[in-house]
This record gives sequence, structure tokens and C-alpha cells, in this order.
Amino acid sequence: MAEPQDILLQKIKEQGDLVRKLKAAKESSEKGKSSQDLGKINRHLSEYSYISGYVPSKIDVELHYNLESNLDFQKYPHLKRWWNHMRSFSDSEIALFPIIHPSHDIVNAIKGNRKNFDIQIQEEVSKLLALKAQLGSEDAAPSKFVLKTAKGTRDYNPQQMTIRNNVLQKIITVFKKHGAECIDTPVFELKEVLTGKYGEDSKLIYDLKDQGGEILSLRYDLTVPLARYLAMNKINTLKRYHIAKVYRRDNPAMTRGRYREFYQCDFDIAGQYDPMVPDAECLLVVTEIMDALDIGKYVLKVNHRRLLDGMFEACGVPADKFRSTCSTVDKLDKSPWEEVRTEMINEKGVQPEAADRIGEYVRLNGGTELADKLLQDEKLSKSKSAVEGLEGIKLLLHYCELFGIKDKILFDLSLARGLDYYTGVIYEAVLTQPIKIGNEDQTVGSIAGGGRYDNLVGMFDSKNKQVPCVGVSIGVERIFSVLEAKLAAGDISVRTSDIDVYVASAQKNFLEERMKICAELWKAGIKTEQSYKKNPKMLNQLQHCEENGIPLAVILGESELKRGLVKIRNISTRKEDEIPRANLVDELKSRIEVLDIKEMNGPLHK
Amino acid sequence: MAEPQDILLQKIKEQGDLVRKLKAAKESSEKGKSSQDLGKINRHLSEYSYISGYVPSKIDVELHYNLESNLDFQKYPHLKRWWNHMRSFSDSEIALFPIIHPSHDIVNAIKGNRKNFDIQIQEEVSKLLALKAQLGSEDAAPSKFVLKTAKGTRDYNPQQMTIRNNVLQKIITVFKKHGAECIDTPVFELKEVLTGKYGEDSKLIYDLKDQGGEILSLRYDLTVPLARYLAMNKINTLKRYHIAKVYRRDNPAMTRGRYREFYQCDFDIAGQYDPMVPDAECLLVVTEIMDALDIGKYVLKVNHRRLLDGMFEACGVPADKFRSTCSTVDKLDKSPWEEVRTEMINEKGVQPEAADRIGEYVRLNGGTELADKLLQDEKLSKSKSAVEGLEGIKLLLHYCELFGIKDKILFDLSLARGLDYYTGVIYEAVLTQPIKIGNEDQTVGSIAGGGRYDNLVGMFDSKNKQVPCVGVSIGVERIFSVLEAKLAAGDISVRTSDIDVYVASAQKNFLEERMKICAELWKAGIKTEQSYKKNPKMLNQLQHCEENGIPLAVILGESELKRGLVKIRNISTRKEDEIPRANLVDELKSRIEVLDIKEMNGPLHK
Repeated sequence: MAEPQDILLQKIKEQGDLVRKLKAAKESSEKGKSSQDLGKINRHLSEYSYISGYVPSKIDVELHYNLESNLDFQKYPHLKRWWNHMRSFSDSEIALFPIIHPSHDIVNAIKGNRKNFDIQIQEEVSKLLALKAQLGSEDAAPSKFVLKTAKGTRDYNPQQMTIRNNVLQKIITVFKKHGAECIDTPVFELKEVLTGKYGEDSKLIYDLKDQGGEILSLRYDLTVPLARYLAMNKINTLKRYHIAKVYRRDNPAMTRGRYREFYQCDFDIAGQYDPMVPDAECLLVVTEIMDALDIGKYVLKVNHRRLLDGMFEACGVPADKFRSTCSTVDKLDKSPWEEVRTEMINEKGVQPEAADRIGEYVRLNGGTELADKLLQDEKLSKSKSAVEGLEGIKLLLHYCELFGIKDKILFDLSLARGLDYYTGVIYEAVLTQPIKIGNEDQTVGSIAGGGRYDNLVGMFDSKNKQVPCVGVSIGVERIFSVLEAKLAAGDISVRTSDIDVYVASAQKNFLEERMKICAELWKAGIKTEQSYKKNPKMLNQLQHCEENGIPLAVILGESELKRGLVKIRNISTRKEDEIPRANLVDELKSRIEVLDIKEMNGPLHK
Repeated sequence: MAEPQDILLQKIKEQGDLVRKLKAAKESSEKGKSSQDLGKINRHLSEYSYISGYVPSKIDVELHYNLESNLDFQKYPHLKRWWNHMRSFSDSEIALFPIIHPSHDIVNAIKGNRKNFDIQIQEEVSKLLALKAQLGSEDAAPSKFVLKTAKGTRDYNPQQMTIRNNVLQKIITVFKKHGAECIDTPVFELKEVLTGKYGEDSKLIYDLKDQGGEILSLRYDLTVPLARYLAMNKINTLKRYHIAKVYRRDNPAMTRGRYREFYQCDFDIAGQYDPMVPDAECLLVVTEIMDALDIGKYVLKVNHRRLLDGMFEACGVPADKFRSTCSTVDKLDKSPWEEVRTEMINEKGVQPEAADRIGEYVRLNGGTELADKLLQDEKLSKSKSAVEGLEGIKLLLHYCELFGIKDKILFDLSLARGLDYYTGVIYEAVLTQPIKIGNEDQTVGSIAGGGRYDNLVGMFDSKNKQVPCVGVSIGVERIFSVLEAKLAAGDISVRTSDIDVYVASAQKNFLEERMKICAELWKAGIKTEQSYKKNPKMLNQLQHCEENGIPLAVILGESELKRGLVKIRNISTRKEDEIPRANLVDELKSRIEVLDIKEMNGPLHK
């Protein structure tokens, strides 16, 4: 059955060429079609509001989801109109869109016919693989594919893990000092748990493949799982922390610490309590963490969603546009007012006069005196919710004074926060100075944020029973990336292993003696290492100690052992002492104790 | 546009009924069809070897994957034949199957036509939602769905987290004592990284939905990601630990600690070293962890893949059946020999005489003397690989003696381990006694396992460059579930928060005073809590201390404060002392120190 090798190799070559041609054809068809499609869709949208005519339908959602976000809108003005319109729908609105089957013509323009290529390629690849298999598995070259982690994710090497664990440990210490308990939830949730919680960002959720059974998605944050946990277990009060990875199919910017898989460190207080008491403690927790991490000067901006609502109301924004106007204000930390104003007017449909009035307010920031002034403001004082927000801010600032952190707090009317679910106070910790990394300054910005969300738990309760919550999330990835950059620049150094003692030998055939001593030291709880080679070179052993910051080495030699002695070498001073073999454990323990005390007094940073 | 409420409600009811009817129809069609299908497929397979005729193809794989594993094989003998045949293919063989389009008839029998129902249901649900939306969002009942975590997963509450963190901390301490560094990898990998690594178990891998971009799967263990990490970063030596969750779409048995999302704690040594030196250290690490966890008597079974291969060879099993025979032997820990023998003969195609010879060997276990005896064995001594395995075992046992753990090791020829990738020594830690939980005995079995895998890293290297590895994985979920059961039975207790001091007040309007004292204690690093209520009741405050094991309370009262005093109450003795307000921090610190020393000397277990 087997064909001669040379014929087989020729066939494989031909089959390989065919597969490559098909792939190239698919690619060029995609490229060509891609621009044709958009032209056709743009023309269609010059006549119709939506793909299916005059009612938005599921196919609009699909197209909106699949289109690249970097479209050339100059070229396709009607597509742009439709794009912005589609962006304005909330998740709950989208859920109600009907399924309408539009004309074949436009469907083809949207979907193209790449599928045929895919099937053909798949079939020819199978043939290629079958041919290669005939070559015999021994001869086959190992299959080649690009070795990488998934887009937007990364491995943590030992140095990065050491930095990460140090940072997390400091944060956990603060959380525990405030009595927070620890919980954990699964990495995936039923998809419907996440549905309708994240507004525009829902499209960034990772879904699992339907492999039969439940429809699942990876968690997007730790707040919605907490709300689900509270509602499911009918828990009314909880002070918990949760440190875990969350997942967002966003555009990664890995050098700035923005990943698709990243850590969140959340601290939340759930329960029906008196106003601003737990809220103020959350602010204190943030300051304690910022101080413990010691990465630079910072300010804690605070604002209140009720005040923002009252401000929008007073400026003449209709109530149904509060949330979308709010998410536009949120962009003020990255964009100048002029751009935000344009988006408000052109995309969110806010009247220019209203936008200008908002512009007056959002440039204000200060302390209690500003809250007092605004309570006298002609327009705001007429809005119930503005007054409520301002009174809340005043109480919060008062409690911050009692906690001794008022100098770190800034009441800032431009702070809006992106997420829909906040209902009360909101806050964000921002570094006020660039961080020096090597010889360069790097701007880091927001490092923690949170607020009050009183209605989220109720969304999961069949009787809509509410559990008010307030919490904060620490943006540890940004902290990690700052410290990693400092490490790379040589500004700090880390030790990735805790080993105190290395058991070495200068002579051949000492493996068994080394093993016995290692066993003795391990039994005594001493962090010990040795070479896994039978006859390692002395130089390599000492080099290993120096590279890994191991402070002490036990050095075995025949002449010393005959006299019942071993040598202890201090790696940094290179001083060696002979001590009785029988005293080894005690001697090492007391030397390690001295080193530990020195270590504790020395900083992690160089 | 809005219709009267009562007409709308009537319409919603009717539309709801329609949806329910469609769903019921879909379900019964599935049930009915399911058995019809199988009959038809069975008849088809009485004539043909495979679905597409006489060559196995992708559709066979699909059907095999989708069929329930609890099929009534008595009823469908031909399906059974095909099923067992399909099971025998390896992943790499399956990858080479061609795509063949079988007749429509049989495709319909396989796939049914459920899809039509799905589309219809989807459309009617949209209509229903649109009707409900007309009712106005305020009137709409909150959407109902079952609040649960995904199948086979669970939340960890604070008690469970405390147990989990205690166990992990003990394990990490041992890993670090041996100089292991910590790494982490993303929760998902490119699907092709996992392909062809897990043999039969590949069907249990969770895939992510194709949302455009890369095709991803959740990690199935930590060993393959480690191999990918080593190959990708061209690392030749590493001693690392990795503690993280892995994912398997297996049948969960949650009471016995078998979940779809579960922790693995892995310790591995990668590098080209002298035989059995790192391997013996892995065994020592397992014994140190078992001793630290102190959950019962155990034995560490060891065996060698080369010996197993040599044994199969000596018994007359053909070389291409070594791996599948090996995975049958692996079932000996759960099934009696008779059942294993039957599977070997009927499903793996081993000759009855060969199976009986295997049966003679696998009942043997012992120490060095057994290895010596087997080296003299007429059949084994002729097999190069058996001799290699036996010499390896002897060396390993010798090193275990030097490490002082030989009494815990049992050389056991029935130990096989399921995974394909092992190439040398294999081992498993097994509890030898049931664990007493409340008044019941529970059998736990295997709690750690591992072995040598020298060829896995090479599978990722384009030049097939090998990095030999040996490692161990601790089955912490079983340990968690034992400790959780003990907790539930009242055999142990845990504290979920570390709070040392509660700041309370017997009188009204002391919130601000409490806040100031809390701030002072937090600043001094004292783990402190207070009520978030303005005027909490004294009884509730003291009850909170008792329920949460908080040892000390500071109690504020007007008369004491006027005299410059505060009270400190010892919660367990109920003794109260008045001390000067100015000395509060120092007094509390010294009391906490005394309590901590007591705590350290007292056990976690009651």
C-alpha cells in the first residue's frame, strides 16, 4: 500500500502548494470583499435606517459586533450614522430586537461567502495530513505552530511572580486589618448572570463554546459574581475581599499593563448601614494600600452619582440621557472638554446649551467649601438629587476628617466612572506625578476605583430584594507593570527563591553525603538546595549561590569530614569557617536568624 | 401605540404558552428521535465499519463525541463494536481522519432536525419579550432564572477559603523549602497547544467560543502549560511550583471533591541531571507535605514506565498496545483484577494468556528485595527496558533511604498512572486508612501523584529539543473536601477573620468617637472593626465578637471618657479593665502579643 518515498514527497509538495494557494485566494477575496461590502452597506444605509429597513433587528447587532472599530468613517458617512446609533442602545434594549430576515443582497454584502473557501481548505489540509502520515510518524517533522500565549495574555516568570505576590500580600494585609473575609467564585458564570450588567462593554465578554449543557461566559469583573453570590445565598451582610483574574476581549496595551486576562483586588462592604460609614472606610482602605505600596503621590477623587444626575437635570439633559451623558463625562480624564462636548452633542444628543452648562460644573473641584457653595447654587439647589448628593459628599468628607485622610481627598465634579451600576458615592485614586523609571518619566493615572451600588444584588433576587453595597477595586496590573519596568531598568531587584543554604562539595563522589546533609537540614526546616548532578564543579555551585542570592553554603570535603568537620561559607563575604559536623543545624539556624533580621531592616528596593 | 394593559397581559399569556408548547415539542422530538436514531445508526453499522463506509472519518469522531456514554449497548451491539473501535484511536490518529460526506439518510439519523425548533422558539421568545417591554419596564417582573454556579463548580465561602488558604500555605512552605520558584500561566491556551497531549481525555477540554481571532481552550492541567512555557522561552533548567485552577468537563462528584473547576498544586524539576536525583527529591517533597497536612497514614507507591513496558513485552503484548494496556492496568486501584483482565482482552485486544501473565506481575509489591528478585526473573531479565526500569527503581529506593523516607515507599507493579506522557518513574501517595469524619469513616485514596516525562517539552520545540522533567501534583481538592467535611461534622473549627479588637459603645451618638479610635488603631497596624451603624445595640456588638472569635473589645462610655479612660473587655473571660485612653494602643498591642503566643501553641483543630 505504501508508495515510494520520492513519489510521496512530491505529492506532499503539490498538495501543500494547493493548500497555500487556496489560503491566499481566501485572503485576497476577504480583502477585496471587505471594502466592497462596506460600500454596499453604506449605500443601503443611505436609504434605510437599519439593515432590515426601519426597525433595528438582530442582524444590526451582529454586524455592529463584527465590524472593525477602526472603520474609515470619512469614506462611509451613512455607516457612521448607523454605527453611532447602534452604540447608543443598551443591552436590555438590544435583547428586545426582533429577528428580521433582510434581503439576500444585503446579507451577502454583510456576510460575504468566505465559508466555501474554509470548507475547501479544510478538505485539502486533511488530504495533506493523510499523505504526511503515510511517510510514517518517525520521519514526519514535528508539527510547527507559533508558540505563544493567547492574545492579550502573558506568563508570569518567577521575578514577575515575586513582584506580584509582594504587592498582593501588602494589599491583603490591609484588607484583613479591616476584618474582610476572603471568598472565591468560579472563573465562569452562566452567561445570563452577566447579561445586562455592563452596558456597552458587554461585547467584550468571553463566551465559552456551546459543548452541550449550560451556556457559560468568563467573568468580566468580581462585582457581578459577588452580587450573584449574595443573592443566591441570601446573605445580607458581608465584608469580603476577592483577588482573582477577570477577562475582557478588549484591545490589549500590554506595556501599559492592559491585558485581556488581568487581576482584580476587590474589597466590598454589603449591608444596610448608616450613610457614608462603610463608604468612608473604603476610602481609608485605599489610602492605606497606596501608602503601603509607596509608588508615588496620589489624590483620591470623589463624586456622587446623585449629584451628577442632579447636575444633568439642572443643565437640561432629559432623564433618559443621564447614563449615556455620564459615560461621556467619564472620558474627561483622557480627552479635553472640547472633544467630550462634541461627543455629548453629536453622539448623545445633548443640546449645546446644556453641554455648555455641564462644562461649567465639571471644571469644579475642591473640598467641603465647594459642597457648601454648590448647595447655594441657583440651579442645583432646586434639584432634590443634587442636594442629596451634596449632603452625602459633605458627610463623607467629615468622616474622612475623623479618619485623618481629608488631605488626600478631592471632591471633583468631573469624576463620573464608566459602569452603569453605581448609585451613590464614586471615587478613584490617581497618581499626581509621573513615575520615574530608569531615566524616563511614565504617567500612570488611575490606580484604584469604586463606589456604591445599591441595586445590583436586587437584579438577581426573584423578589427584587436589595442588599446595598459599596466597594473598591485596586488596579494591580498597573502597579505590577510599573514595578516590572523599574526592575527592568535596574531600579529595584527581587529574589525569586527563599533558599538560605546551598550544600556543595569540592570533590567527586559526594552526592550521597550531600543528600544526607540536605535531608537533615530540610527536616530541621532549613530552606536548602543542592546540585542534582553527581559531580558538579565547585565554580558552578558557587556561581549558582551568587546568581540566586543564597547567603550560605555548606561545603563538604574529605579531609574535613574525616576530622568530623564541615565548612560554612558566607557567599557575599567569601569567609569560610570550619565547624563540627554535629553542630551544623544549630550553627546554620543561628546564622540564618541574624541574616533574617538584617533582611527585615533592609528594603526590597535597592 | 400602547395597548390597554389587560389586552397586553392576555397576549403575553398566549405568547408564553406558545413558547412553552414549542419547547415541549422540541424536547419530546429529541427524546423520541434519540432512540430512533440509535436504531438506525446501529443498523447502518451492521453493514459498514464506519459511518462513511470503510474508512474512519471526521463524522465518526463527531458522533462518538456527542453520544451519551451510558448507551444501552445490549440493545445496539453494532454501535457497541463501533464505539469501542472509536475509543481505541489516539488523538494523533484522529487528526488524520479525512472529511467524507456520508449519505443524507445517515446524517439525518445522526443529527436529527432540532435546528428548526430552535429558530422557531427564538423568534417566538423575541415576540414575547417585545410584548413584555410594552408593559413598561417598571411593571415588568424581574426576570427569573435559576441562580446557580455553572455545573461542577462552586463558590468558596469564607470558611472554605480559610481552609483552602491554610492548606495551600502549608504546601507552599514545603515547595519553597526546596527552592522552588513560582510561575503562572494564562487560564486559556491556544487550542493547538493542548491538542494531542491527553489521549482519551481530550474530549473533556473546555473550548472557548470562536468570537473572531484565536481558537482557545481552558487549561486542562498545569503540566502542558509548563512544557509550553519552557519550550517557548527556551528554558533548560527550572524548579518551579504552580498553584492554579484547571478545567475538565468531567462528570462531577462534588461530595468527593471532584469538580469541573479545581485546584492543582504542582512542583516540577526540569533539566538534564543525573538519574533519580531530582526524582527522589519529588518523593521527599510529597512526604513532607503529607506530614505537614497530617490527615492520616499514607504510603507512596512507586513504579517505572520502562518496567511496565518491559513487563508487557515479556508477557507477549504487542508494542503498539503498550499504552492502552497501561491505561487499563491503571484501573486496578478501583476495579478488581477480573474486571481489568476482561477489559484488556475484550476491549484492548490483549491475548488471554498475556493478560494472565500480566496478572501474575501486577499483584507484586515490596522493596529493594523485590527489584532484585525481578532482575533474576526469567522473562523480565531478557527485556532491556524492564532491566532499565528495575535498576532505576533500585537507585530511587537507595536515595529514599538516604533521605530517610524508605519506610513510606512501596514499589508496586500495579501502579500505572493514566496519562500518556510519563516516560520514567511514576508515583502516587495513597491514604492507607479511612478518615474519621464525625462518626463515619470515609475512604479517600490517592492524594498526590506524578512522575517523569522526558519528551513533553520536545513536542513544542521546532527542533524537537528535549528538556527532561519530573514532577508531582498534590490533589488538594480531596484534602479540602475532607477538611470541609470535618468542619461540618464539628471536628474542627476555623476563624474567617483576623480581627483582634472590636470598638464598641454602650451609648448613643458615639459613632464619631468610635471612628477616631478605629483610625488610631488601624494606623498602629491593629486589626480592628466596629459597627457601621450609628447607634448599634451593646448586645449585638458583643455577639458579633463572640460569633467571629474577636478576642478583645474596646468599650467607650461617656463617664469613662470624661475621666480620660476606656474599658478593654476580654471577650472569652468577660473581664473588663479601665485603662487610660492615652495608653490604649500600647495596652492593646501587648495584650494581642500574649494572645498570639497562646494561639501559636494551640492547634487549628479543636
